[in-house]
This record gives sequence, C-alpha cells and structure tokens, in this order.
Amino acid sequence: MPISSMLHFNTVAILGVGLIGGSIGLGLRRRALARRVIGIGYRKESLRVARERGAVTETTLDVAAGVADADLIIVCTPVGRIVDDVRTVAANGRPGVLITDVGSTKAEIVAEVAASLPRGVTFIGSHPLAGSERSGPAAAEADLFVNRVVVITPNETVADDDVQKLTDFWSGLGARVMSMSAAEHDRALAATSHLPHLVAAALALATPAETLELTATGWADTTRVAAGDPELWRQIFASNRTALLAALARFDETLAALRTAIERRDDDKVREILAGAKERRDAVA
Amino acid sequence: MPISSMLHFNTVAILGVGLIGGSIGLGLRRRALARRVIGIGYRKESLRVARERGAVTETTLDVAAGVADADLIIVCTPVGRIVDDVRTVAANGRPGVLITDVGSTKAEIVAEVAASLPRGVTFIGSHPLAGSERSGPAAAEADLFVNRVVVITPNETVADDDVQKLTDFWSGLGARVMSMSAAEHDRALAATSHLPHLVAAALALATPAETLELTATGWADTTRVAAGDPELWRQIFASNRTALLAALARFDETLAALRTAIERRDDDKVREILAGAKERRDAVA
Repeated sequence: MPISSMLHFNTVAILGVGLIGGSIGLGLRRRALARRVIGIGYRKESLRVARERGAVTETTLDVAAGVADADLIIVCTPVGRIVDDVRTVAANGRPGVLITDVGSTKAEIVAEVAASLPRGVTFIGSHPLAGSERSGPAAAEADLFVNRVVVITPNETVADDDVQKLTDFWSGLGARVMSMSAAEHDRALAATSHLPHLVAAALALATPAETLELTATGWADTTRVAAGDPELWRQIFASNRTALLAALARFDETLAALRTAIERRDDDKVREILAGAKERRDAVA
Repeated sequence: MPISSMLHFNTVAILGVGLIGGSIGLGLRRRALARRVIGIGYRKESLRVARERGAVTETTLDVAAGVADADLIIVCTPVGRIVDDVRTVAANGRPGVLITDVGSTKAEIVAEVAASLPRGVTFIGSHPLAGSERSGPAAAEADLFVNRVVVITPNETVADDDVQKLTDFWSGLGARVMSMSAAEHDRALAATSHLPHLVAAALALATPAETLELTATGWADTTRVAAGDPELWRQIFASNRTALLAALARFDETLAALRTAIERRDDDKVREILAGAKERRDAVA
C-alpha cells in the first residue's frame, strides 16, 4: 500500500500531551498516519518532552491557533475538563473538523457536548482501554493501543463517514474498535473499571498501616490501581455516579453472600462462590 | 565459609512437593543446605517431577518411612490437612525432630497440633509469604523465598535452639524471618491476604459476563488472585474465620464512607478518601 493512502489525516491536533495524548502522537508518527501532529497544552514542560520524544511535529500553548488547521482534534485532558475543552476547540476548529476525546466516562460528556456543538463540527466520544500507573509524555509508547479495545460512542446524528474516519484512526494505531451507546459504555465500565478502582481504594485504606510489612503479591495486585491520581478518579466517579453506585450495589450483594456463607460455616456455599469467581476470572486472559 | 558449616541439616523431609515444597527442596539443594532431601507425597506424578527437577534426592509414598531419619520435617500440604499431617509425621519422626508447616493460617493449626504432640518432638508454625498463581513442582523455583518474608510462630514452650534452627533454615533460603504469635499473624494476614482474596472474588463474580470484553489491566490486576484454587481458599477462610470477618467489617466501613461521599456528591470527601488510599498503597513497593 503506498504511503499516501495511509495518510488518513493531514493535520491532527492533540490537546493534552500526557501518557495517552503522547502515545497517540508517537503512534501516528511512527506509522506515518498524519503529516502534522500539533501538540497543544497548558504546560511548556510537557510540550517540550512530547516534542523531544517525537510525539508531535510542533507545539503551542495557544489552543485556538493549534486547532485552526486540524482535520482531527483529540482532547486528552482529564474527565472533569473534557466538556469545556471540547467546546473551546469546537469554537476554533474549521468547518468539517472531527473531534474526539479519550475520557473514561462517556454519557455525561457526550450529552453536554451535543447540547452546545457549533454547526459543521462533529464530536464522537472515544475511550481507549489502555493505561498505566505511569503518566506524562515521558511514559508514552507508540504501541500503547495495539490490541487494546477502544470504545467509540457515536450518537444517531453522526454521519457514517465520520464514524468510519474515527474507526480508521484508532485501527491505524493498532486498536480493536467497538461501537456502542454512551450509556452502554458507562454501565459496562462502571463494572469493569470504576468499581474495581473504588474497591481497591477501600481495600488499601482498610489495611492497617502496621500490617503493611506482611503484604505480598496478592495485596499488591489487588490494590495496585489505588495508586492512581485521586483527583482524576474523583472526576471519573462523579461523571459516572449512577452506574457506579448500581455496580457497587451488585458487588455488595455478592460480598454479602460470601460473608453469610463464611459466618454460617457453609463450606459448600463458600466453595461454590469462589469457584464461580474463579470461572469469571479465568474467562479473561 | 566451609561447606560443612552450611549443612544445617543432614536429612530434610518434605511432605507435599508442590510449588512451595518443591521450591524449598530446590533451594536447599542449590545452596547445599541439606545432605538428603526426601520428597513424600500422595501422588507418584508430583514426586517424579520433583525428582526430575532436582528438588529432592529421593522420594517415597510411605510417610512413616520418609520421615523416620529426618532432622527437619516440612509439611507443605493444604491448610485443611496440615493438623492431621503434622500428627502423622510427629508419630513417625525420631526424638528431637523439628517439624514445621507452610500454611497460610496459624492460630488454629498451632493450637490443635500443640494439644496432641508426642514428647520429644517440636512443632513451630511457618508461613512463607511467597506464592504464585502457578502450582505444582513444575513451577518450583530455588529462589522463591529470596527477600520474601517468612513468619514463624513459636509458642512459649518451644526451646530457643529450635527457634534458631528454624530461623536459620528459612534465612538459608534467602527469606527475611519475622517471629510473632499465631494470633497476631492471623489478624495481620486476614487484612493483607485473606480479605483481598475475598474481595477480589466478590469483584470478579459481580462483573457481568457480557462486560468482560471491556476489562483492561485494572480489572485484571484487581481480580487476579480470584483465579486461585477455590477449595484451598475455602480452607484458609474457614481456618481464619474470626479474624477474616473482623477485617471484612473494617473494609465495609471504609467502603460505606466512600459510597456515602459519592452519593452525596461530596467531592472533597471522595478526594480525601482516595488520597488516603493512595498513600497507603504507595507505602508498599
């Protein structure tokens, strides 16, 4: 395939060049999927690192100038900022521009953005299920999205061409793209990501400090995500509050069943619950 | 140091040559810490693998014969079998023999063994905080205990010489030995190991099967231990029931505080709880 046909985009603008934004830039450049990759940020230092790592071809602190020529704008800022940032880039983008984000929640963002989008500008939510305890452009990797799932949540008003364009973009970075409604995404991610974080945090905090010397790999694995940024996760919890509380209620029921079986010394029931949990866990690599 | 002074034991018998028992044997032989290492088991196949891997110098299905000459006997069978197995090896050991185990719980085992130990035989409980999702002698590693904590729980009737002997044994395998009461061990491990397992199992089971495709590394880490053997963990829960239920009650309080803060949209409180959890998690490497 000639290079030209792989250049899906002439100019891509990335607002927020941290782990995800930086990895998108590196992935695009390594694969020659965009001619220009403009890194936009609020901190000079991050932009400098992103540029030095080759994640972007140029950088700017000026959002309006940075997005003016872009065919695709990717907003990679924290969940609590995304709606405002999408509004800003939409107001400064050229007609026909496609905008997406990489936030961990979708329904609230998609609804609020839809209510205020200028004519001729398209927004489709994205959520790459790829991350790391590390953060910042220094931790960025060109292959971060390879074989990872990226969920996109186009609403009914979005043109098929734009859905295809966004699908090609993520596929080009190596991802497996799944399309679903924002509400469906949020219900699923409440169970598979937000609840695990909440539970891991409660577990870490419930461990008496004087027993930490007696932790081993089991504790370390089970609580690993609790090392994530508190403010970032507060925003995610707030943005997916209803689905998260519903997932927590289901967890409570399972936990209560296990507690009751242990209290009653019901060996068969304890074994049955643990076997069911093992089956569910073993279904994932 | 001449080799002879490192031969702490002439003959070590290991009952149960799985991951832990096999790793003890490999570690002893690699470091020349025992002249003979006798592997005893109930299944020919495990014994064959242990022998072929060099974890033992000889094997037998006959427990009485296998322990007859031993200076040190290590019972590496599942928690629910340990008391019976210690009684059997104690009845067949020679006078002066030191017996230990590697079970994940200690108070119940130590109390039941103490009530039925023949004269001239010493038992001290051990718990190496080393493990793996893998099991069996094929997964054994000579360095499994290097830099890992091993808790020993000598009661007041045990001679200092025997405590020193057991400490030297585990130190010889590279472990960091901590001595405490069996009750203290069980309270700590309820928080650092048994509760995390219980919570991980409930979390895995509470994840709707149709959302498993949308799991990522966070879910995988948080639920990893739930892949453990259900019957083994049932036995551990049963053996440490009281301390586990107390740890679960503490976890419930933390979880309830987080839930309430999310329900009330109390941003400051959510952030404060997550920051406390991060601090606790970050205290462990």
